[in-house]
Amino acid sequence: MYSKEEYVQEAEKFIKVHHQDKWYEKKLNRLESIREQIYSEGTWTPTKDELKKGGQMAWRNSSRCIGRLFHMSLNVKDKRNLTDENEIFEALVEHLQEATNEGRIKPVMTVFRERRKGEEIRIWNKQLVRYAGFENDGVITGDPAEVEFTNKCIGLGWKPKRTAFELLPIVIQIGNREPKWFELPRKSVLEVKITHPELHFFEELQLKWYAVPVITDMAFRMAGLEYTAAPFSGWYMGTEIAARNLADENRYNMLPVVAKKMGLSTNSRHDLWKDRALLEINRAVLYSFKKAGVMITDHHTASRQFMKFCTREKEAGREVMADWSWIVPPMSASTMEVFHKQWQDNVSDPNFYYQEKKWK
Amino acid sequence: MYSKEEYVQEAEKFIKVHHQDKWYEKKLNRLESIREQIYSEGTWTPTKDELKKGGQMAWRNSSRCIGRLFHMSLNVKDKRNLTDENEIFEALVEHLQEATNEGRIKPVMTVFRERRKGEEIRIWNKQLVRYAGFENDGVITGDPAEVEFTNKCIGLGWKPKRTAFELLPIVIQIGNREPKWFELPRKSVLEVKITHPELHFFEELQLKWYAVPVITDMAFRMAGLEYTAAPFSGWYMGTEIAARNLADENRYNMLPVVAKKMGLSTNSRHDLWKDRALLEINRAVLYSFKKAGVMITDHHTASRQFMKFCTREKEAGREVMADWSWIVPPMSASTMEVFHKQWQDNVSDPNFYYQEKKWK
Ligand code: HEM
Ligand code: HEM
Repeated sequence: MYSKEEYVQEAEKFIKVHHQDKWYEKKLNRLESIREQIYSEGTWTPTKDELKKGGQMAWRNSSRCIGRLFHMSLNVKDKRNLTDENEIFEALVEHLQEATNEGRIKPVMTVFRERRKGEEIRIWNKQLVRYAGFENDGVITGDPAEVEFTNKCIGLGWKPKRTAFELLPIVIQIGNREPKWFELPRKSVLEVKITHPELHFFEELQLKWYAVPVITDMAFRMAGLEYTAAPFSGWYMGTEIAARNLADENRYNMLPVVAKKMGLSTNSRHDLWKDRALLEINRAVLYSFKKAGVMITDHHTASRQFMKFCTREKEAGREVMADWSWIVPPMSASTMEVFHKQWQDNVSDPNFYYQEKKWK
Repeated sequence: MYSKEEYVQEAEKFIKVHHQDKWYEKKLNRLESIREQIYSEGTWTPTKDELKKGGQMAWRNSSRCIGRLFHMSLNVKDKRNLTDENEIFEALVEHLQEATNEGRIKPVMTVFRERRKGEEIRIWNKQLVRYAGFENDGVITGDPAEVEFTNKCIGLGWKPKRTAFELLPIVIQIGNREPKWFELPRKSVLEVKITHPELHFFEELQLKWYAVPVITDMAFRMAGLEYTAAPFSGWYMGTEIAARNLADENRYNMLPVVAKKMGLSTNSRHDLWKDRALLEINRAVLYSFKKAGVMITDHHTASRQFMKFCTREKEAGREVMADWSWIVPPMSASTMEVFHKQWQDNVSDPNFYYQEKKWK
């Protein structure tokens, strides 16, 4: 726990950067008013502009994120006044629609009430849109990574159809109240059917993925304040869907299926059947998103943009923190500049943090 | 600098492991004789068996090496008695022939005189077999990574033909004497012509690579002793040649050439032309080595073998040290188990170390 003086210091550090960056006109008496608020209420309330800057800095400091060139374009939606599950759910749907923007995806973060301002708000889901996973006699339908959470939702009363790409409900909990669950309106969820420019069997596989990854389970911390519900989203990098979600053995595990359809023998590791199937799934995902008019980046472009971010940060006199093993994309690594670089990786605030799950 | 007592302690640590591993029958008076030798001669002389064990442990401790499952099969050639450049060169040729073994490659290390036993022996080359690089008006023929060293060799009197895959001479220096250079006998260097199972244009590219990578510039340290010339070699993993040596932009840079021959436009990053060219070069290298009867491993097999090594080490009560960013192969990373693991990475002796170049 922070002492009050420590809160003042955290606020001071933050406000200084804020002004150094010249993003906000100087307010010399701002710190004094924060100090007063902390001493009277035990916490303080960033202005909307400060909150926005905090979100942008948190993104800029996310050492595992390759997409940081665009941190200044983050839209921050201020929903700190909401106290009710229904309103919070409405705000989440609003986030999704605004971020989706009919395919011209915009980076968005929605900030709910700070931890010390009332009962803690938590969204149980990993992401706003995710597909459920169902186990039956050792066979899994849907996303294996969501089996446990799916069971939890069923326990809460959710009645699934048990299909391969079934949207999970959103579960919101405030303090120790009973969690409430909600179904996303179908029309608010943009999805892309996966086809391939040449390999027509992809249609038969009936694969699809959703357009916008909205992380809902990380905490956003800035200047001593902790926002336990502050979902954020950008657009996808193709490999996230194609090399991980659809390909990982403990996810949709499509490599053997695609290889077989390609006529490759899965006996010969030497002939790189996995690599060949992986490549075609990746081409398919990029192709399908593009065709559907949904923004997505490929790993080569993202890698270049990240190097540009590094240059810009250096010019601004800041050292880039980065986690090499996350920044380097999970395929064709050595063909990208990021593979050949190294970075320090110290955590600095504002930032995003994992938090213990409420439902485990 | 170590004190004599420190040398005794280092020897003691080593001898203990040596015996624990039950690789060698216990010799209770061995330590006493080492102590005597250190106090009289200032250094000690491992037996042939101890040297072999030291080499195997150094390989086992090499946290960047994915090939460690086979560390117990390392052949260690004892050439500690050689004092003359010509003899040392002969021993290097012998290493190459024995390791090559007509394609059925054997892991081999050759150990030359210890640092404190006389003037320091150094092999200037990075590897025993490497192709020269020539710069002419900004255009490079051969391996760009070897341009600087190639110029050094020319300065010593070497007369190259300036072709794309020209064997560099071997440069040996003892103490501060003039370095001596030697041409490898052509017949001692096994090379593989790169062709592709389906893409016949590969023949026109006239690519080849050598069969055995023999690292010649790292120091081998064991139990307080330092061997500044102790070349070691295994067999190749395909990506080392295909994803790095032939593909890196600052090496043979073949991706644009192969992509063009494949009819891919290098404009569209989105269609993954780099990934597609990379994949075909990798298939070509594995296919060509196999066809030529030269041992090589693919990255999937190597990754599995490394996981088996981890299991075995655990069973033996030892913790595996590993450098994730080197262990994880430079392509299709997330399709392999190693991608999903984490390791500690502390250095422990015996091991291999970089040393300052003598010729820079
Ligand atoms: C605009 C497009 C964006 C792209 C292309 C992008 C790309 C990525 C990628 C590829 C990862 C690794 C994901 C994985 O391997 O699981 C990542 C992680 C991350 N990104 Fe971004 N990102 C974007 C926007 C954002 C935004 C808007 C934020 C926050 C405001 C953000 C914060 C993070 C964080 C905190 C992580 C680490 C997540 C974790 O530790 O699990 N990113 N990003
Ligand atoms: C038997 C087959 C072997 C395979 C397949 C293998 C594989 C590899 C690979 C892929 C690397 C990374 C190379 C790079 O990215 O530049 C590596 C590094 C390394 N290996 Fe092995 N290796 C083998 C044998 C050996 C042997 C016999 C030794 C020593 C006795 C050894 C010691 C090392 C060391 C010290 C490194 C790190 C080199 C550096 O830091 O530059 N390896 N190995």
